Order: sequence, then structure tokens, then C-alpha cells
Amino acid sequence: MSQTGRNGSRAKNGQPIEPVASDRPYALRLADQRSVAEMPTDAPDRSDAAKERARAEADALRGRLAEWQERLYAEHHRRLLVVLQAMDTGGKDGTIRNVFRSVNAMGVKAARFEAPTRDDLARDYLWRVHAQVPATGQIGIFNRSHYEDVLTVRVNGLVPEHVWRRRYEHIRGFERLLADEGTRIVKLFLHIGRAEQRERLQARLDDPHKRWKFDDNDLRQREHWDDYMAAYTDAIRETDAPHAPWYVIPANQKWHRDRTVLDLLVRTLEDMAPQYPQADVDPSRVAID
Amino acid sequence: MSQTGRNGSRAKNGQPIEPVASDRPYALRLADQRSVAEMPTDAPDRSDAAKERARAEADALRGRLAEWQERLYAEHHRRLLVVLQAMDTGGKDGTIRNVFRSVNAMGVKAARFEAPTRDDLARDYLWRVHAQVPATGQIGIFNRSHYEDVLTVRVNGLVPEHVWRRRYEHIRGFERLLADEGTRIVKLFLHIGRAEQRERLQARLDDPHKRWKFDDNDLRQREHWDDYMAAYTDAIRETDAPHAPWYVIPANQKWHRDRTVLDLLVRTLEDMAPQYPQADVDPSRVAID
Repeated sequence: MSQTGRNGSRAKNGQPIEPVASDRPYALRLADQRSVAEMPTDAPDRSDAAKERARAEADALRGRLAEWQERLYAEHHRRLLVVLQAMDTGGKDGTIRNVFRSVNAMGVKAARFEAPTRDDLARDYLWRVHAQVPATGQIGIFNRSHYEDVLTVRVNGLVPEHVWRRRYEHIRGFERLLADEGTRIVKLFLHIGRAEQRERLQARLDDPHKRWKFDDNDLRQREHWDDYMAAYTDAIRETDAPHAPWYVIPANQKWHRDRTVLDLLVRTLEDMAPQYPQADVDPSRVAID
Repeated sequence: MSQTGRNGSRAKNGQPIEPVASDRPYALRLADQRSVAEMPTDAPDRSDAAKERARAEADALRGRLAEWQERLYAEHHRRLLVVLQAMDTGGKDGTIRNVFRSVNAMGVKAARFEAPTRDDLARDYLWRVHAQVPATGQIGIFNRSHYEDVLTVRVNGLVPEHVWRRRYEHIRGFERLLADEGTRIVKLFLHIGRAEQRERLQARLDDPHKRWKFDDNDLRQREHWDDYMAAYTDAIRETDAPHAPWYVIPANQKWHRDRTVLDLLVRTLEDMAPQYPQADVDPSRVAID
């Protein structure tokens, strides 16, 4: 992750925001692995002590994220788009809840992409996505995204292969446009194991307060687990770019997942280093009676 | 214009729609000319007889256009996007009024792109454009378009050269997406001469009913005429594609302009050849009491 430096001192005005995270980022890159299926879904250290440390780190990182977002908004020049993808029960909603808890709601714009409506289907698949991109100064969050059009659409055979295959090129072009015009993009695959998914689905069935979340279709999609891993691997490889990198987040442990995402977003904002605008006024020359 | 055939008989169901236009299309392609500045702005024949013929042709073509649009809507599978660009007073509004007069308003969606709003400027320049693309079965009309972001933006120096120059690639990607996902695109440059523009501006000043249309800024843009011709030439060359071709329409004579645009759109729809859907019902087996 060379593009997200650790240099908190790049904040050239206002108080510098101190870096808090550890030396190395927790988020993983696909890099040389043949498939996301080979990548860890567990935290490297699952001891109680590690869990406690992660929670303390996450608390500190939440404060930093809020500070950086305030600067991004004040600067009013660029945007940050966070794309969240995961298998069912992978923790997209929980991540959004836990990561952005301290951030000013005015500065965050979350969009959820469910099955397309009749109106959506009447246009190209990027139409509804483009409509939801963040405005200047905002952090946009995509809860699912245009990637479903090369993931679930592919796995379920909703369009022929030549149709989903050419979509990688559309997506590269779309993200290039966003980046060139001032949006930093970070794409996260919350990576859980198949066994972890079984436990989470069972928990939904067992808990009367969670039962409403249970969906038959989740079981059908679970049967295609390997196809999904192949589709994720291809999607990540085809659309990974310096201006729109993909990260794989081991997500079996929520405390590790949340800390990892917070760490990554803070690093990204440190690298963007948004600045408070220069005031045009010299306060020593202003007399207010 | 090899991609828009003349084969009215390709309408495989319903009554075939008879082709009406002349043997060769009237619309011009930039092709080997060095610049649009070298291309004709006048009709090839400006006699009264030619004018009369053009008007009769336009009347017949309007009927064909309405018939084809009805099929496009019934088929409910694809879309047609017509991009209209011109110098000020070039006749965009008049063309839309005269060409689509007979077409069912439900099947047409016109969008006008004026100076971007604060909200527009908070996103990339294609955001507001993508939002306005036609839905399935519709003919979309862009009155000005994303091309202003490489025309007026370039000529007036609103962004640095490296910013407008990389936009050609964004636009190619955007139009590729639309085409791949089912939208036929036709791009028209209504081409008037500088002398013709002077007369039209003068007419706006002289006629108290047209004076509201007069805008000081039109005079400022007129000073950049040669820069605009260079910008149009580059934009056409950089973004001309089989799925999104550019046509230059000699537009000094409105009767020639309207007939030329009608002829082009009818040819395009003939080539798309939208079909009435097959009914699932065998009417001979239905008894309605």
C-alpha cells in the first residue's frame, strides 16, 4: 500500500493529526496469491490481549477518522469513495456502523445497492451507481456496488459471459473518471470463511430478533461459494489500480475487521492530507464592534 | 455511414416501414478534412425547388420517425441517444422542435445541459449527464452535452489542458458503456457559418420577440470562433466510433438541416430495426365472453 503513506505531518496547516496506527497496515492485497480463497479470513492473533488492543486502537482511529473527514469537508475539493463488498453475513452493515460512528453524518453519504429496480434495469448497470457518487468533501460508502454486476450477475448467469466480461473495462473507465476528477477510491472485500458464514446464518435462525435477516436466497448463493471466490479474484485482479486499490480484510473477527478498515481509511486520508482552506482575511485587521 | 443501412424490409414483423429518403444520406462525416472549418455549412442546392423538395421529404420522414419510435418503445429493449451540439444560434432548439414534432412525447426524453450548478460541480462532469440517459424504448435528446466539457471548457480555459485532454478517454469509455449495454448513439454537429451566426444574432437584436434570447456571452464566444472549430474537430476525431458516430450537418438553411437530421435518424432506426414483441397468446384460442 505504497500510495497511503504514514506522514501525518503532511497536514500543512491547522494542528497536525498524529498518526496512531501500527507500523504495517492490517489490510491485505491479493498480490501473488492465486485466489482470495487462499487468503486468511482470521485475525493473525486471536488472543484476548490482541482483541483488547484492537479495540483500543479502533477507538483512537475513530477519532482520527472524524478529524480527517472534517478537513476533507473544509477543503471542499476532493472526495473519498469506500466500496464495501462481502459474501452474505460478511459484515458490511456492521462495519459501516462501527467504523463511521464518530464521523459527522453531514460528511458521509452511504448508498445501498440491492437488486436493481425496473427503473434501474431500464438503463445501463452503472447508471444508478453513478447517481450515488459522493459530493465534494464527502466520504461516500457503497454497501454493495457495481461489482455485483460482475459477481452475483456472473455467478447466477444473469447475463452471458461476453456481457459480464466486457464490464471490467467499463468499470476501469468509470473509476478512472472518478479518480481523474477528484475522487479517491478504496475497495474492500470483507473476507469471511465458509464455516464462519454457517455460524452466522445459524445465529440468524436461532435468534428471534435476527430471524428477519434470514433469507432463503443466502443459502442458494452459499452453494456457489467457490464460484464467488473465483469471481471475486477476477474482479479484484481486473480492476485493481493505484487510484482505486482493492484490499482484502480478514473479517471472521469483527474486532479485527473494524480496526483493519479504520486503519486503512485513516492511512488513506493521511495520504490525501486534505487542508483547511486559507482564510482570505487577516484577523488582526478586522475590528468588530 | 455504413452502419445505418437502408433496408426497411428488415422490420421482420408488423407491416414493413417503407424507406423514404434519397439514395445517399445528407449528413456529412469529418473523414479526411483537416477541420470542420473546411466543411460546408450550406445546402448543396439552395434553389426554391430544392427547398420545396426538402420540405416534402421532411414531412414524410417525420411520419417514419414516429413509426420507428413506436416500435422501439414496443420492443422495449434498446435506446437511441441523439447528442446535439452547435455554436450559439446553430439551431439546436429549432431542430428538436421540427424533427420530433410527430413523435409520441412518452417515447422521447430531452435533456438540456446549461452551465453546471453547484450540485453538478460537486461531482465529476459526467455525473449529471449519466443521470439523463434515456430509458429502454426511449429516444433521448441531449441539447448540449458532455462535449461542452471539451469544447467551451477548453476554449475558455476553465480547466488546464491536461484535464480536458484526458476527458476524451473518459467520454470514449462512457459511450462504450452505453453502447455495450444497449444504447445506440448518434452525435450531431449543427454546422453554421460565422456570417450566418452574425445574421442570426442581429435578428435576435432586431426582433422584440426574440430579444430575450440575446446574450452578451454569445458575442464573447463568437470571438473564439476559430478555437471552437479546432476544439470541435479534435472532439469529433477523438470520440468518433462505429457505435457512436459523429455527423456534421450543414445548418445554414433550416429546411436542409431538418431534413438532413430526420433522414439520418430514420436511417439509424432502420438499421436498428426494432421489432414488435412476439405475443405469447394465440388469439384463435382465446374466447372472450
